[in-house]
Amino acid sequence: MADSELPTRPKPEETPAAEAAAEGEEPGKLSKSALKKLAKEKAKAEKAAQRAAQEQAQAAAAEANDTAKHLYGPIPESEDVLPSTRLAEITDAHYEQEITVVARVDNARVQSAKLAFLMLRQQGLKLQAVIAAAEPISRQMVKYTGGLNVNSIVQVTGIVKKPGVPIASATLSEHEIHIRKVYTITEAAQQLPMQVKDAERPPPETTDEGFQVDESGAPIVTLKTRLDNRVLDLQTATSQAITHISSGVAQLFAEYMIKSGSRWISTPKLVGAATEGGSGVFEVKYFKRNAYLAQSPQLYKQMCIAGDMENVFEIAPVFRAEESNTHRHLTEFTGLDFEKTFRSHYHEVLEFAENLLVFILTELKERYKEQISIVQKSYPKAGDFKLPKDGKALRLNYMDGVAMLKEAGVDVSEQERFENDFTTAMEKQLGQIIRDKYDTDFYVLDKFPMAVRPFYTKSCPQDPRFSNSYDFFMRGEEIMSGAQRIHDVKELEASMVAKGVDPTHEGFEDYLSAFRQGCPPHAGGGLGLNRIVMFFLGLPNIRLATLFPRDPQRLRP
Amino acid sequence: MADSELPTRPKPEETPAAEAAAEGEEPGKLSKSALKKLAKEKAKAEKAAQRAAQEQAQAAAAEANDTAKHLYGPIPESEDVLPSTRLAEITDAHYEQEITVVARVDNARVQSAKLAFLMLRQQGLKLQAVIAAAEPISRQMVKYTGGLNVNSIVQVTGIVKKPGVPIASATLSEHEIHIRKVYTITEAAQQLPMQVKDAERPPPETTDEGFQVDESGAPIVTLKTRLDNRVLDLQTATSQAITHISSGVAQLFAEYMIKSGSRWISTPKLVGAATEGGSGVFEVKYFKRNAYLAQSPQLYKQMCIAGDMENVFEIAPVFRAEESNTHRHLTEFTGLDFEKTFRSHYHEVLEFAENLLVFILTELKERYKEQISIVQKSYPKAGDFKLPKDGKALRLNYMDGVAMLKEAGVDVSEQERFENDFTTAMEKQLGQIIRDKYDTDFYVLDKFPMAVRPFYTKSCPQDPRFSNSYDFFMRGEEIMSGAQRIHDVKELEASMVAKGVDPTHEGFEDYLSAFRQGCPPHAGGGLGLNRIVMFFLGLPNIRLATLFPRDPQRLRP
Repeated sequence: MADSELPTRPKPEETPAAEAAAEGEEPGKLSKSALKKLAKEKAKAEKAAQRAAQEQAQAAAAEANDTAKHLYGPIPESEDVLPSTRLAEITDAHYEQEITVVARVDNARVQSAKLAFLMLRQQGLKLQAVIAAAEPISRQMVKYTGGLNVNSIVQVTGIVKKPGVPIASATLSEHEIHIRKVYTITEAAQQLPMQVKDAERPPPETTDEGFQVDESGAPIVTLKTRLDNRVLDLQTATSQAITHISSGVAQLFAEYMIKSGSRWISTPKLVGAATEGGSGVFEVKYFKRNAYLAQSPQLYKQMCIAGDMENVFEIAPVFRAEESNTHRHLTEFTGLDFEKTFRSHYHEVLEFAENLLVFILTELKERYKEQISIVQKSYPKAGDFKLPKDGKALRLNYMDGVAMLKEAGVDVSEQERFENDFTTAMEKQLGQIIRDKYDTDFYVLDKFPMAVRPFYTKSCPQDPRFSNSYDFFMRGEEIMSGAQRIHDVKELEASMVAKGVDPTHEGFEDYLSAFRQGCPPHAGGGLGLNRIVMFFLGLPNIRLATLFPRDPQRLRP
Repeated sequence: MADSELPTRPKPEETPAAEAAAEGEEPGKLSKSALKKLAKEKAKAEKAAQRAAQEQAQAAAAEANDTAKHLYGPIPESEDVLPSTRLAEITDAHYEQEITVVARVDNARVQSAKLAFLMLRQQGLKLQAVIAAAEPISRQMVKYTGGLNVNSIVQVTGIVKKPGVPIASATLSEHEIHIRKVYTITEAAQQLPMQVKDAERPPPETTDEGFQVDESGAPIVTLKTRLDNRVLDLQTATSQAITHISSGVAQLFAEYMIKSGSRWISTPKLVGAATEGGSGVFEVKYFKRNAYLAQSPQLYKQMCIAGDMENVFEIAPVFRAEESNTHRHLTEFTGLDFEKTFRSHYHEVLEFAENLLVFILTELKERYKEQISIVQKSYPKAGDFKLPKDGKALRLNYMDGVAMLKEAGVDVSEQERFENDFTTAMEKQLGQIIRDKYDTDFYVLDKFPMAVRPFYTKSCPQDPRFSNSYDFFMRGEEIMSGAQRIHDVKELEASMVAKGVDPTHEGFEDYLSAFRQGCPPHAGGGLGLNRIVMFFLGLPNIRLATLFPRDPQRLRP
């Protein structure tokens, strides 16, 4: 067999150009950059020459009698094509077997007139394919293969072989395909706005948007470029892993809620009045009037409780018209909300929520091990997310947090006077103190001062300076806010007045009616899915944890 | 024990007033209405007298030495109250046991100075409670209990007894509670805009909004009144059942998708351009510019496929700025969307979607038997939803449907010329023909004419007059539209031009780039959750299958 001569060829990762590309993925391990540049330029020149040669050859092949014509080219127009094997499914049992795979061209390279290499990519996994000119494979077919545009989707049929030396730049380093047929399913454009392999390296932490290269001369793709070209960015192994984990958070939240007997609700996002103040709310033209986008399902999920629904949850977008241009704010994100009656004490709901988070975070670690380790290769700084050893959430009172910060020398005089909630910096510092002391990245603060919570929060019966409310934190940043809610209409109206909210505003009419008609005691909370993903993985920016992020500047793609 | 004397009292359902109320729930079974009216008026007068007496008594009790003072009244201010038993949990094992329940007052009635009745309600279940004055229970306590406002939430502690005669008006007809303590947790207003028990009867089919009464003089609550007071309407047994089934549809969709390895996505609802034409899209003020609400996740889920995500699904609101005031249109509803690559033929995805629906509908029938039978009591007309006996979806070609209608004498000349899709009337008639012939309420039409499908639809390679697209139907009404999508950018641009859509519109730039960079063959579909619930249960209006519906006229509650 012609293929048998292949193991003796130089492995692509052994050539200087391939080495530079491979090492470019780990900028820390570079050897002398001058050598690399030289190799790179040489490779470039070679490629240009190859391309010119290929074009000539293709033209010639069209006229000449190419014996392999039927083995390559655009995929034949027919609805029935061969069933394919997924890269993730390939095992040692496939050695010497013929398989067909459908994958992207991650890289294509002509080595000589008789030899070309393809790196195939599928959901972040990479597999090398080689083609050598020998009956029935023609030189034209070799050129076609080596000249395929990066990112094209191809159907490759060939024999699985064990490479002589493991292929370091491939994920499947112990397998390669010796090509027998190669068809293009979709041809990608020759010029891509960025290379997926360049986007595999994390974006720079600075916000500098200029074109940058690392020591090896490989381009550093900024966050802006990635997000502008999000579809390409989603193809990286890192993005593939993040989107899997993001899917997992929604799934685990729903799983826990459904197991608890909670009902899945969908509350309206189009609302008739801007109850939470005009500034943070998006206005919508609604036929001949105005509507607004709900900032949270808060009022509606409470109305569901008043409607005897007992235990409800929602997974839906929430909208915030806030000019916050930070690493952790978006104008649209996925809210995970729940609301629940309790039998005797709001701590029943608090414990329910604590167990929810422990469940989600524990199961993420269990079910997404592989994806977590892929993300950690790009974002190693934060380290593994630490959960309490005993499987129970750490719960402290807000004032305990104040005391711990004070002990660490932080000025908490405003917090002691209930004038302000913690600043972000304080939260982060407290997160560090708690991590050092309790060895956990997840914890809960209970009993926030009433002064810093919204009007619907129930005050603490034992000490009305405080409230029956709680925040959840991951790595020192807030991921959930929740509380027992006031269920008595007179108490609710009084609380609104005390907070400067007008209970006669038409937007509150239906809400207050619900309580006037009798509502059971209840508590709940709202989580940000994107923040959970961000802090769990220690990503530096919430946009990396969001499929198509929206902020005051960004409405595309 | 004082309670032992209770079984000898007249059962509330044996008195004329109670009988009228009970029969009012089944309008078909009424006896002479004159007698009822008389009984009703008598009951009304009695109630007014009771109320006056109660007010006097309460004032007197405050001064006098009421020995039962600590056994009733507003619930004592303390965070710790007794754990309670749910009505659904009560079994014969509870006979002679003391339990505490937290429930709504569905009805309260003083029978005499020494005897009062409460009908308790919890998530649509009803249980009778009785109270008799005998040490330590005072006459004041009896009056308090019988005078409780309807819809108040109370905590009742008492002994579970087997009533002498089953209590027909209660769901738990074989149990009643003999009250020992009764505390008000939340007092409802004395006047409610509608009674939950009146809303238990279905709304009239006419759109007449005037006040109506049925033969017994019981008010008929119009759909408008129900929706205006949706929180009360949600408390009915019917609404409780519908919201459970609605939750079930979302849950079963997610379950099936997750099992298939699909990734849960959240695509943006705020988009930068109105790609699907300005008229059907809501405009949003987005800081200093305009944004639009996504009419569907179509473009974004395809971009996820181009981003190598393979198999994705979304459960999220979709927004339609259409002036459609029909029984089945909303301006905001819950979309169940999926998109999927396939290996060799789009029928792989079609079969996946067919199996999805068969799974959802089969499991609904299995898991929500009880809820379905509750809804059918109010809406019996449509009957049980029929599924194909062999567990496989019935798939016909669009042109088969045309032929069946033609055979039935319908003028389908426009359809034969591909000028128009079926009208709603044709769809319903076809649904009836198929039900008669194949004994199923669920079926699929494949291969729609290209002329009636959107630009991103792949035409049929064998006959370009048709397309690789399909609709799903329940009881002759469309619940899903789907297709193989064009994945080749040149083909896509040509199709846009052919359909009069401008490919150079800035809103398509990111979408077309995704294809230019290479996208695998894929297909998908979008379902309306609310429609599935509506047609599965045979509800006459989609608003009954929606928590807080939105239409051109309705933005509240």
